[in-house]
Amino acid sequence: MATLEELASLVKGKVVGEKDLEITGVSGLDTAQPGELSLIAAAKVIPVARTSKAAAFIFPSNLREFKFKGIEVDNPRLAFAEILWHFHPKKTYPEGIHPSAVVGADFKQGVGCHIAPLVSIGGCVKFGERVVIHPGVVIQDEVEIGDDTEIKPNVVICSGTKIGKRVIIQPGTVIGGDGFGFERNNQGKHFKVPQVGGVVIEDDVELGSNVTIDRATTGQTVIGAGTKIDNLVQIGHNVEIGKDNIMVAMTGIAGSTKVGDRVTLAGQAGINGHITIGDDTVVFARGMVISSLPANSVVSGQPARPHGEDMRIQAATGKLPELLRTIRQLEKRVAELEGKLN
Amino acid sequence: MATLEELASLVKGKVVGEKDLEITGVSGLDTAQPGELSLIAAAKVIPVARTSKAAAFIFPSNLREFKFKGIEVDNPRLAFAEILWHFHPKKTYPEGIHPSAVVGADFKQGVGCHIAPLVSIGGCVKFGERVVIHPGVVIQDEVEIGDDTEIKPNVVICSGTKIGKRVIIQPGTVIGGDGFGFERNNQGKHFKVPQVGGVVIEDDVELGSNVTIDRATTGQTVIGAGTKIDNLVQIGHNVEIGKDNIMVAMTGIAGSTKVGDRVTLAGQAGINGHITIGDDTVVFARGMVISSLPANSVVSGQPARPHGEDMRIQAATGKLPELLRTIRQLEKRVAELEGKLN
Amino acid sequence: MATLEELASLVKGKVVGEKDLEITGVSGLDTAQPGELSLIAAAKVIPVARTSKAAAFIFPSNLREFKFKGIEVDNPRLAFAEILWHFHPKKTYPEGIHPSAVVGADFKQGVGCHIAPLVSIGGCVKFGERVVIHPGVVIQDEVEIGDDTEIKPNVVICSGTKIGKRVIIQPGTVIGGDGFGFERNNQGKHFKVPQVGGVVIEDDVELGSNVTIDRATTGQTVIGAGTKIDNLVQIGHNVEIGKDNIMVAMTGIAGSTKVGDRVTLAGQAGINGHITIGDDTVVFARGMVISSLPANSVVSGQPARPHGEDMRIQAATGKLPELLRTIRQLEKRVAELEGKLN
Repeated sequence: MATLEELASLVKGKVVGEKDLEITGVSGLDTAQPGELSLIAAAKVIPVARTSKAAAFIFPSNLREFKFKGIEVDNPRLAFAEILWHFHPKKTYPEGIHPSAVVGADFKQGVGCHIAPLVSIGGCVKFGERVVIHPGVVIQDEVEIGDDTEIKPNVVICSGTKIGKRVIIQPGTVIGGDGFGFERNNQGKHFKVPQVGGVVIEDDVELGSNVTIDRATTGQTVIGAGTKIDNLVQIGHNVEIGKDNIMVAMTGIAGSTKVGDRVTLAGQAGINGHITIGDDTVVFARGMVISSLPANSVVSGQPARPHGEDMRIQAATGKLPELLRTIRQLEKRVAELEGKLN
Repeated sequence: MATLEELASLVKGKVVGEKDLEITGVSGLDTAQPGELSLIAAAKVIPVARTSKAAAFIFPSNLREFKFKGIEVDNPRLAFAEILWHFHPKKTYPEGIHPSAVVGADFKQGVGCHIAPLVSIGGCVKFGERVVIHPGVVIQDEVEIGDDTEIKPNVVICSGTKIGKRVIIQPGTVIGGDGFGFERNNQGKHFKVPQVGGVVIEDDVELGSNVTIDRATTGQTVIGAGTKIDNLVQIGHNVEIGKDNIMVAMTGIAGSTKVGDRVTLAGQAGINGHITIGDDTVVFARGMVISSLPANSVVSGQPARPHGEDMRIQAATGKLPELLRTIRQLEKRVAELEGKLN
Repeated sequence: MATLEELASLVKGKVVGEKDLEITGVSGLDTAQPGELSLIAAAKVIPVARTSKAAAFIFPSNLREFKFKGIEVDNPRLAFAEILWHFHPKKTYPEGIHPSAVVGADFKQGVGCHIAPLVSIGGCVKFGERVVIHPGVVIQDEVEIGDDTEIKPNVVICSGTKIGKRVIIQPGTVIGGDGFGFERNNQGKHFKVPQVGGVVIEDDVELGSNVTIDRATTGQTVIGAGTKIDNLVQIGHNVEIGKDNIMVAMTGIAGSTKVGDRVTLAGQAGINGHITIGDDTVVFARGMVISSLPANSVVSGQPARPHGEDMRIQAATGKLPELLRTIRQLEKRVAELEGKLN
């Protein structure tokens, strides 16, 4: 429970209506119950908001004229997220190692760590403070994990991985599996290149469910601080990803590629190996990037092209069957003209 | 063992040949051994059937003239499946909780449940009857699972998930991982939107291996009754999927999209977020659906277009290099004509 | 530690420079430390090599003129891999079954097997010699695993799977999940076709992380000897894959397709079901193969076409917007000519 005024002060917003209104929770427009706060992120949801049971709304200043009650803010989505945290604070877990967990030699941990049932931890593993390891997680030898990092169930962290602070790893993800490296030998067989490098996951990274991040052949595969990676994403060996990137589900990055900062890769994108993606680049969904991109690129398509160009190509492609007919007619008309003139 | 007559009666078919023929098993045309029953689903496999060792065949009425022995039915594939069940009945598991499993407080279960070794079950979990949990499964707090549901090894079911009756979940699948929701804050960092909603899996759903289904931000992600989802499929947060859909491997559905009933999404399809897919729609393999589709749509391509149109575009695209040459020639011919006339 | 001469003899190369130079390790050009050996695979990395701290290099004969010190060989990448193995030999694990592992009845194993903590093994399982099973692995009933095979953490191997010798399976992979087979019954519901076949993984196969390989409906899904499969690849039921193939991350092969030997499927490729891919075929990244391909095919695109043709189509597609303008102008010019002549 919190009053509108308390919540407004939390998000540095302005109360519109009754300051002392008691808010009991936060929910979407469709699902909000009486007493709850909901979100009007943009004008297009106003009709839905009019039928919502919510007691009040977070809305942007430019929708002030619609006279909703609640909290006026600059960034309503961000404010909604902050208020959600207020009603659903991060879950805490009791300190201790469950007796069913198996922990190897030379394990070092800071205060407040929680190791759940049926966790396997190898040798020479080092945890910071308040690390939370959920059931079924396997951590191999010589792994380091920073303060306040949370590893969800059945994640696998292979040997030598270094994970920063406040990292969240969703269930089923594999960090540090072998990179895909083979050389054809004289008998035409694929000879395995040992994958002896590691993986570094910097602070404040989040990885989705069933993601795969391969260890480097030599050196390190790196996921930069603040980068957020969605489910079923594949990161090849020796890839180096910068800070504060967004990589949407089912995207793949082939080996040795370098990605800058604040890059967005939308869903099912594919990035070739051994190339460089400049800062602040956006690749649209299903974009297939074959060669390096400078900073601030905005690309789409298969192969990826500058987005404006790709849109023009898509529009023209839609007219192709008609174009084909036009050309056939033009050929006839030109032949007739030629007949008349020759 | 069963006679041809017994099997025919099981599938409401008509015996062709010896009623008392003893059938020892069921197999494909290539692999069938003497004494076994095999399947002729369509005319094109008749040459293979002629060389098969099978003692008898299930075949459709319209292939009666080919005089195979066995069972004549309307839907031979369905009959084959029913007879396979007869020879390979659903495996049963002994009631009980293996001593290596770790079960939280307030666990409630109906009769006949089987909890395998090394399973972790959180607090306040509730099972119906005859629920089967395979080894390595992690079930978090406040999960409900209905009668006769089977959860295969190393599946993760996050807190608050509700699963119906007769559901089958293949290994490695993650249900209820956090949705991918972030808002950029004033420092340009991605601020995590708490994902506090849940997932509802209705009755008779089957989920493949290593699937990911995210929990809702608020409210529920829903997989409707009878829907079948193949391996490595991604379902984003707040997606609502209707009944009796088929979603083939590696398909992804972005957040908040609503899918109707009896929809087919073929392999590697991609569906944008915040759109609606009408009932009975078919999306071909690799189709990329960007905007909402009415009921009974049949689409393909990237971006997805009505399938007939997409086929015409594909055909025209194949002729593009030739077209380019034709246009260059037309330009010359027109220029010559212009030269003569001006 | 090893001298240049010892390493050269290992890879049948020729020492260039000091025979007795002590090499302390192997690393990439960027990360090599003084005393280490690095790799010059091709002329384009020579500028980087000039600034590397490495003490010596493996290089191909055709770069002899650049006068690097180290080892001259025919295939520098292969030699680099062989020397990496020298410095990072395959890890060995102590014989024995960890007390937290749960092993079913009738378990047979050869000498030297290692079964890690929290492993679950079903009934009637049979291991060869020196099999290594990492933590969290689930092996169901009647599985056979050959000598020197290594199964990484949290892999699931379903009942009846047969795995050869020297196989490596990266973490999180699922072998033998049910194939995706349903028949619509008279009520329009999807009736499950029992998946009662198995999976055969032949010798020297490597499977990446979070791969899914479905069991056959009846008969076997087969991965041929020496085939290497990358992360997040999907292999449908009854697929038969030949020998020494390379299948890059996120590729999917639909049910019942047959793939020959020495085939390369690049990343995010998709192969239709019930078709045949001939030996030595190459499918480029994101290629979508709809129909059977003869041996030695080289294809790309969506749908896949012979690569040369696809390149010409891609080039022409890039010119489409310009083409459209040209055609509109041609129409006008032809109309003007017609006006003058009629």
